[in-house]
Amino acid sequence: MYYGPGRINSQNRKQMKVIYLYLIMMSFMVGAFSQAEHRGQKIDTPGKIEQWNVFELILQGPTDGNPFIEINLSAEFTNGDRKINVTGFYDGDSTYIVRFMPDTVGLWKYITMSNNVKLNGKKGEFTCLKPSSGNHGPVRIRNTYHFCYEDGTPYYPFGTTCYAWAHQGDALEEQTLQTLRSSPFNKLRMCVFPKYYSYYDKEPVYYPFERDASGKSDLTRFNPVFWHHFEKRIQDLCKLGIEADIILFHPYDFGRWGYDKMPPEADERYIRYAISRLSAYRNVWWSMANEAMFMDKPDDFWDRVFHLVLEADPYKHLRSIHAPKKDEGTYPITHSSTLSMNPKVALEWRQINRKPLIYDEVGYEGNAAGSWGSLPPQELVSHFWNGTMLGGYVGHSETYLDPNNILWWTTGGVMHGDSPVRIAFLRKIIEEGPSEGLNPVYVNLFPWYRGGTVLTAGKEGEYYLYYLGYSQPAELYLALPPGGPYSIDIIDTWNMTINRIQGEFLGVSTIKSLNTPWEWEGMVKIQMPGKPYIALRIMRVDRP
Amino acid sequence: MYYGPGRINSQNRKQMKVIYLYLIMMSFMVGAFSQAEHRGQKIDTPGKIEQWNVFELILQGPTDGNPFIEINLSAEFTNGDRKINVTGFYDGDSTYIVRFMPDTVGLWKYITMSNNVKLNGKKGEFTCLKPSSGNHGPVRIRNTYHFCYEDGTPYYPFGTTCYAWAHQGDALEEQTLQTLRSSPFNKLRMCVFPKYYSYYDKEPVYYPFERDASGKSDLTRFNPVFWHHFEKRIQDLCKLGIEADIILFHPYDFGRWGYDKMPPEADERYIRYAISRLSAYRNVWWSMANEAMFMDKPDDFWDRVFHLVLEADPYKHLRSIHAPKKDEGTYPITHSSTLSMNPKVALEWRQINRKPLIYDEVGYEGNAAGSWGSLPPQELVSHFWNGTMLGGYVGHSETYLDPNNILWWTTGGVMHGDSPVRIAFLRKIIEEGPSEGLNPVYVNLFPWYRGGTVLTAGKEGEYYLYYLGYSQPAELYLALPPGGPYSIDIIDTWNMTINRIQGEFLGVSTIKSLNTPWEWEGMVKIQMPGKPYIALRIMRVDRP
Repeated sequence: MYYGPGRINSQNRKQMKVIYLYLIMMSFMVGAFSQAEHRGQKIDTPGKIEQWNVFELILQGPTDGNPFIEINLSAEFTNGDRKINVTGFYDGDSTYIVRFMPDTVGLWKYITMSNNVKLNGKKGEFTCLKPSSGNHGPVRIRNTYHFCYEDGTPYYPFGTTCYAWAHQGDALEEQTLQTLRSSPFNKLRMCVFPKYYSYYDKEPVYYPFERDASGKSDLTRFNPVFWHHFEKRIQDLCKLGIEADIILFHPYDFGRWGYDKMPPEADERYIRYAISRLSAYRNVWWSMANEAMFMDKPDDFWDRVFHLVLEADPYKHLRSIHAPKKDEGTYPITHSSTLSMNPKVALEWRQINRKPLIYDEVGYEGNAAGSWGSLPPQELVSHFWNGTMLGGYVGHSETYLDPNNILWWTTGGVMHGDSPVRIAFLRKIIEEGPSEGLNPVYVNLFPWYRGGTVLTAGKEGEYYLYYLGYSQPAELYLALPPGGPYSIDIIDTWNMTINRIQGEFLGVSTIKSLNTPWEWEGMVKIQMPGKPYIALRIMRVDRP
Repeated sequence: MYYGPGRINSQNRKQMKVIYLYLIMMSFMVGAFSQAEHRGQKIDTPGKIEQWNVFELILQGPTDGNPFIEINLSAEFTNGDRKINVTGFYDGDSTYIVRFMPDTVGLWKYITMSNNVKLNGKKGEFTCLKPSSGNHGPVRIRNTYHFCYEDGTPYYPFGTTCYAWAHQGDALEEQTLQTLRSSPFNKLRMCVFPKYYSYYDKEPVYYPFERDASGKSDLTRFNPVFWHHFEKRIQDLCKLGIEADIILFHPYDFGRWGYDKMPPEADERYIRYAISRLSAYRNVWWSMANEAMFMDKPDDFWDRVFHLVLEADPYKHLRSIHAPKKDEGTYPITHSSTLSMNPKVALEWRQINRKPLIYDEVGYEGNAAGSWGSLPPQELVSHFWNGTMLGGYVGHSETYLDPNNILWWTTGGVMHGDSPVRIAFLRKIIEEGPSEGLNPVYVNLFPWYRGGTVLTAGKEGEYYLYYLGYSQPAELYLALPPGGPYSIDIIDTWNMTINRIQGEFLGVSTIKSLNTPWEWEGMVKIQMPGKPYIALRIMRVDRP
């Protein structure tokens, strides 16, 4: 047995070894921890692993035939009465791996099962320690519509999208990580399969399957080099505190590689392989597809994919599907991952599904051809605020044209836009809001204006955030919700200023008109900037 | 009998006189005609009246009792086989008037009918001459969804709203007319009754009914001074080529005058009186109400109002109702007068009602409190373009705060906004478009982008106007509609520039993808400004 840092190749390949591995490249860890101590995974003491880090059992086994399909390997991990079955995978070069993410502190024992005698019945144990600071575990649902890490720490998703960033080669990928490091984004949508679409026609550096000289894929053989690289990028994101929203299928192939049109048995092998390799990383989310409606799949295809993922993933990571033909709520999603910004529809989904709502695609800041990729930054930031008002979370990306087709949306790289800094501003406001998350609250803020009830994001009696969009009033008459006293902040979401109106203000319990149609008892008149993109924040002065 | 210019008082009040009147104040006519020869009404030769001008029969009658309710008076006008019955009205001071708008050239005869012997059986005749240039008659519906004057000249409504402009006194009203003269607006929404609402609490100069010293109205007695003034303003608008969209009822009263809560018999008298006085002016439209949904009326009230107007108005002027509780299409409207900018709903209305659609209220440019009155000019101009794309016509108004509460929207005065000049720019484009008006045309302009079919306003095979809204692409790939060759103009709707792309371009009959998902046979790649608020105009080069 060998305990040590780094990925260790066997000194004697004939001997079977059990190795506790540090999953994270040391070179990145130093940087990550010095900048953000709460991010990423901590180095484990040999024989010990911290909660929600990855325990990796590495075995040597047969190479003859096709191990990818002929050898099965799993392990049962036991902690007290609990038993968890985890599937391993062939990593090429006679190496077999079982990865496991322990979710409970204490002693864990394991035993392997395999149809190959060399891989079967291997036993061992390790101690799971408390997580280090910054390791909060995988993200889960809380309060029906919101998220938290498994340790209960609130998680407010502020996502971006770089579909093919992990297929770009190290130089650009390192730049992407550098960009993300100082960005407001804590979730990244990314595809397993390479992408072929507008503004991008490059081949990926690595392919997920073995290919022959003519470029034909052998769908029965995975390419470990691809997967080593891909999972390294998942870990890089984890170190930055970024959830990897992994897109299993997408339609951006157009016959180039055929990954969108594999036979069912290849799809299933692919899903199982991906899950056996990736699910032990705590920052993994599963997005079954991007723009599923454009994929030519039979009606029950996505049901089967969800079923497989649910069955194969021992950790039950978050699951979603982006833009299927059917209502996404008909699948066993953990949260909605919508393409739309239609507020009415979205609110209905939230209400019907009773699940968190992430507007993963509301269009991108940029100047590409196509309405989805040509939003002015003002519009994208507006979408973020509007989605927040609906009790949801909005996703970002960027599509500014580039002579070398380096568009953040596909390749990563650097961001050129004006929205991220404003999204950071919003994220800070959300993080300083009620810890349980913001829900839609209807408040009769403007009784003098018929239909004066507006949708705010807030917590009844305590906190209300109201976004005015492009309205540019120079004054407002407010009837504050019953209770208080409240403070009133005028938030300029574009110029990123927060101005508190002097004074504390009581709520209005009885809405009553006085002499004129716009004079109401207890109303507060406030001066407004007369500019668009303003929000009001009304907080009970003594809120916790 | 006296033929002459001006309103003539009888030299001998005991004698009955029949007077052909010039309806238009000479002082205004000179200005109006020198500036815009196609506008307004021309002075008629005595004994003769031009088509669609007003013939006025003035009679002297009894003053005892209450002539407003006790005396009835009408006249039958005959031209060949045609007979038209017109109701007269009491104008106070022993004067009774019958107004008539002849719609046919030639000899017209008339005979009066009354329950009063002095007013009964009076006969006469006049010759109706061809209209002078600029007099096109009242506005009618054409091509199902559009408008023209009765002589067939297209009329494209570009309206604004000054609800209470005719209640402001001469100084402000003259300023309003001066402002309108150089504005792009050819329709004005205005209320008969005074208005009491946000940013406005003044008493009107005149009241439509007689009032006692305490301000109590006598709903059985109209106030001729009010009506003289009001109809003068209708004629002032006519001289400027502006249709008067007269709002018969509105909810902006709040118990101050009670005009919104009169008993049914008073409502009926009011409607009949207004129609007998105003319907002979060719630029009159009837809007039964503004924001009818906020009026506390029984379910059948608006049905009765429409019925009355239909019965009483011999000319069948355009009829609409603004924002009723029920679908407006359930009433005998000539066109929709909507409050909404919800494109889907609006298109449905247009389709179901098969009537023209005017978005009479999409919000106003300004900075007032309330989302309806705080649009940046960019938004209002966008609404104009979006409404045009839907085959409709959009209305303007302005609500910039003013220390003296002179807001164009209510009082008229001057306009401060940045939208009117852009609306003028749009109007010119529409007027240079297909004369039959623009209808929604779906075109697959962007086949490379799935769902590439977009809504344009146009005429199939000949003319397409496509508005990109806030999208800011720096390039586009277009598949022009089959046919052509076409010219392509890039219209910057905000900066008011039109740039023609060099060359003529053929349409694409077979949409076929080449190598990459965004390469399509026959596609035109065009450079775009990378700014929001751009429209494309695609015109067949040899279009008439």
